[in-house]
Amino acid sequence: MLTDIEIARSVKLRNIADVAGEMGIAPDQLEIYGHYMAKVPVKYIDKGKMSRHHLVLVTAISPTKAGNGKTTVSVGLALGMNRLGKKTIVALREPSLGPCFGMKGGAAGGGYAQVLPMDKINLHFTGDFHAITTANNMISALLDNYIHQHEGEGFRLKQKLWRRVLDINDRSLRQVITGLGGPGNGPISQTGFDITPASEIMAIMCLATSIDDLHRRIENILLGFTYDDKPFTVKDLGVAGSITVLLKDAFDPNLVQTTEGTPAFVHCGPFANIAHGCNSVVATEMALTLGDYVVTEAGFGADLGAEKFYNIKCRKTGLHPDLTVLVVTAQALKMHGGVDYEVIKKPNVEGVRRGLWNLDKHVRNIKRFGQSIVVAFNHYSFDTPEEIAVVRDHCINDLGVGFAVNDAFSQGGEGAASLARAVVDAVEHNPSGPLRLSYEDSDSIEHKIEAIAMGIYGAGKVTCDAPARAMLKRIYSLGLGHYPVCIAKTQYSFSTDAKAYGNTDGYDFQVRDLVIDRGAEMIVVIAGNILRMPGLPKSPQACRIDLVGGEIMGLS
Amino acid sequence: MLTDIEIARSVKLRNIADVAGEMGIAPDQLEIYGHYMAKVPVKYIDKGKMSRHHLVLVTAISPTKAGNGKTTVSVGLALGMNRLGKKTIVALREPSLGPCFGMKGGAAGGGYAQVLPMDKINLHFTGDFHAITTANNMISALLDNYIHQHEGEGFRLKQKLWRRVLDINDRSLRQVITGLGGPGNGPISQTGFDITPASEIMAIMCLATSIDDLHRRIENILLGFTYDDKPFTVKDLGVAGSITVLLKDAFDPNLVQTTEGTPAFVHCGPFANIAHGCNSVVATEMALTLGDYVVTEAGFGADLGAEKFYNIKCRKTGLHPDLTVLVVTAQALKMHGGVDYEVIKKPNVEGVRRGLWNLDKHVRNIKRFGQSIVVAFNHYSFDTPEEIAVVRDHCINDLGVGFAVNDAFSQGGEGAASLARAVVDAVEHNPSGPLRLSYEDSDSIEHKIEAIAMGIYGAGKVTCDAPARAMLKRIYSLGLGHYPVCIAKTQYSFSTDAKAYGNTDGYDFQVRDLVIDRGAEMIVVIAGNILRMPGLPKSPQACRIDLVGGEIMGLS
Repeated sequence: MLTDIEIARSVKLRNIADVAGEMGIAPDQLEIYGHYMAKVPVKYIDKGKMSRHHLVLVTAISPTKAGNGKTTVSVGLALGMNRLGKKTIVALREPSLGPCFGMKGGAAGGGYAQVLPMDKINLHFTGDFHAITTANNMISALLDNYIHQHEGEGFRLKQKLWRRVLDINDRSLRQVITGLGGPGNGPISQTGFDITPASEIMAIMCLATSIDDLHRRIENILLGFTYDDKPFTVKDLGVAGSITVLLKDAFDPNLVQTTEGTPAFVHCGPFANIAHGCNSVVATEMALTLGDYVVTEAGFGADLGAEKFYNIKCRKTGLHPDLTVLVVTAQALKMHGGVDYEVIKKPNVEGVRRGLWNLDKHVRNIKRFGQSIVVAFNHYSFDTPEEIAVVRDHCINDLGVGFAVNDAFSQGGEGAASLARAVVDAVEHNPSGPLRLSYEDSDSIEHKIEAIAMGIYGAGKVTCDAPARAMLKRIYSLGLGHYPVCIAKTQYSFSTDAKAYGNTDGYDFQVRDLVIDRGAEMIVVIAGNILRMPGLPKSPQACRIDLVGGEIMGLS
Repeated sequence: MLTDIEIARSVKLRNIADVAGEMGIAPDQLEIYGHYMAKVPVKYIDKGKMSRHHLVLVTAISPTKAGNGKTTVSVGLALGMNRLGKKTIVALREPSLGPCFGMKGGAAGGGYAQVLPMDKINLHFTGDFHAITTANNMISALLDNYIHQHEGEGFRLKQKLWRRVLDINDRSLRQVITGLGGPGNGPISQTGFDITPASEIMAIMCLATSIDDLHRRIENILLGFTYDDKPFTVKDLGVAGSITVLLKDAFDPNLVQTTEGTPAFVHCGPFANIAHGCNSVVATEMALTLGDYVVTEAGFGADLGAEKFYNIKCRKTGLHPDLTVLVVTAQALKMHGGVDYEVIKKPNVEGVRRGLWNLDKHVRNIKRFGQSIVVAFNHYSFDTPEEIAVVRDHCINDLGVGFAVNDAFSQGGEGAASLARAVVDAVEHNPSGPLRLSYEDSDSIEHKIEAIAMGIYGAGKVTCDAPARAMLKRIYSLGLGHYPVCIAKTQYSFSTDAKAYGNTDGYDFQVRDLVIDRGAEMIVVIAGNILRMPGLPKSPQACRIDLVGGEIMGLS
């Protein structure tokens, strides 16, 4: 089979104006980037139309390092549904350059179920992440400058909370000291860089519902505390307007196309382990305005992305999926069944069977939210019929949920026909009931953390380190206890230990720190050893990406 | 009069495909960004056509903090020449977000002589600077990762030369320590950030003549020295291909339009004080392919930008201007005549007269390069006829160079009519002779520095600090003595002291350090207290940029 980028290149792309035109958007309303990408103004969102359309969430069991192919299934499902005559738009998250040049690769789907042009989407795309990085770091520069310029008048911050970001995996920026070299370069700060998807600006872009809301949220960003314990915000810095200006164009959702020429929105929001990991509200709403069905995704396993999709994105917007599709792979089941990572591509029916506990736990969790479920078995070439049969039998007979095999990677929409039928059938005849969230706004932050850690992850108890306890006091004194929690945790285990595969029920959930995202209106809970700035592996993908005869190689 | 952004908004823009079409470029060959910006593939460069066309360089006397309006004059001159029936394209440098949010403002011209859409050009434009920032910092991450992953095998760098960049004025990033927090985050480095225009990647983008040449130069970038004193390069890191991939789209020149709908290329290269400060070779060559006349600019005063234009850009490419236009303002002359900065907008004929020495020195310098000169008096509303008469009389009668007043700021191309006539007349009847460079490739680095410092700036002698002397040894041992020198120096004075106005002849030119740009193939000479990362003022422009009713305010 061809590589992802070879397939991407082999597809004859439609002009993006034609793709938009079919949805009723005139070419002069688009901000076009090249021939195949465009931004659609947020004014096209129409709540009346949205309410008549269907939303399907795609999530997954706990992934391997290579992921479960959730984006591939999302694209494939949309292709399959379009072939059934259902006008379906896929709404995805934008890839980060970090994993693209690091280990995991790009995030534009794979095989014959990709969003295109995949090289542009995986690289600079329409510049959204660059705008977010710039806005974040412009605030940093303006904040340090404010301190520098006003320290003669006695202004100082007791606690500076704002960090810089880059959309690069760079472990040596996790902890840095800035402002060295004398008072002309000050103030001296012990600080660090996170990866751009972890920026509060990213979360704000994902959750804001209009440019005015974006501006309001930017004003509210908490940068630190003064010596008299007053919060110091972007509004105090006087630059919310110029930061909004930097983000204005990036805020409009990006329209691209699938390998079969159907529309796809790709906008913000990767990394459900260190962020909320869903694409932007405006992109989902735009897709729901323009399509009868919308397939969207939430990052990593359902414990991370789907939980945040329901408890944060749906809570804040009133969105509610008609169905949740749970992606499962034989490889991931084998890994959860104790099979060594090196041999998970080898046939091992018993390994698959031993890993079903992970599927079961995700199914139980998703059902708690009141969701109907279809399990999508994402088929790899080395999976055996026996392995598939074990999962199919378990889903239908033991769990009583829908099941279908997805072959979109190798066959495009045709390979997702049975999955598409299962999804449409479930939405039409057995849709989800009302969304049941895990906690009320009015619950305490501690209760909210417990609701997720114990109720979803299976922790036995929650402990808080000193920095987290101190921040908890800040949260209550600022009157922010009504925010939802966004838990930053490893994607590899239900526990906070990335290496603890298998059942970890009853473990101790350690809260290391809390971050107040007052613009995004949520509390980020740093659990265990999760790092908000990834590192690169010994042999990064950057060593294999190349330009050969004008063609990009090595992107996947 | 309206503000720059009000004028920019009042202009009815042409679709960029029409602007390109008039130059013979088919719409499907363009990479379009929105309706008014496009990238033109470098394959359109045609050396045969170039040789039949005329190149005019616009430079200036030593500027005030607000500049002399060189970009405004360049655009105005092109407008005026187009009105004379000369097919003229202006080729400019891209603005940096640093000054745009800091003190100096944007860099897209002003009044009725702007390149448009000025808001996009001044903000993210087509993402070139973001691509350069990302490429630079991706190398940093890959380098630190290489050290981190290979230190167990004994790999270490004795000297790490590569620094990170951001396109932001951020003084607290000038000197930082990275890699803190334990061995998992290492290696620990004392390092820092420069502003993106100072990145060697920017210089490479400006000087590369093809994608293959870009790749070759990236491979050659010197990152540091190993403990056995061997150079360690991007090629050794094995990532030249992927870094080229990050820059591939950015390498194509950007086509926009002037306030009068004529074509303009705006591509890379600002900051002639800390970089070579000229737009890209490919943009200049593209413009020279497509226009009968090309007006291009070089940054700050002629001691900085023009010297580098001749000695670096022309040396490397064979480009040679038919004429140099020297922009002069009454304000700058008054400042050089000892008038307080606060009152340079007030009439002061005697102040203007006392400042003429600065004009004279730049004229002498430019003549040494064998250039014909037209002085363009850039007219501000508060200049008096008497002030203008003093300069006119001096240029014509004392210096024997062309002179014209530029009113394009307030009147567009009509206001540049006499300047355009003077320029066309000079090019047709009194063009420059062969370009005389300041030194030969084979001269020593010390000689090259002296040729500029003593020959152009008027220094009495050159002294080298210890780091510069050590680097000089490195340069010779690597066999790189044939590179030209790119001197980083304050733009406010011929000396290395930003506050030393007036005649500084005979001063001591202090070389603080040397930087080997092996990819850009030049030696950057750090002179005096010049900083490669600017800071923000107490009241930055960021406090005045805002989004009001969907319209951007405060950009200039």
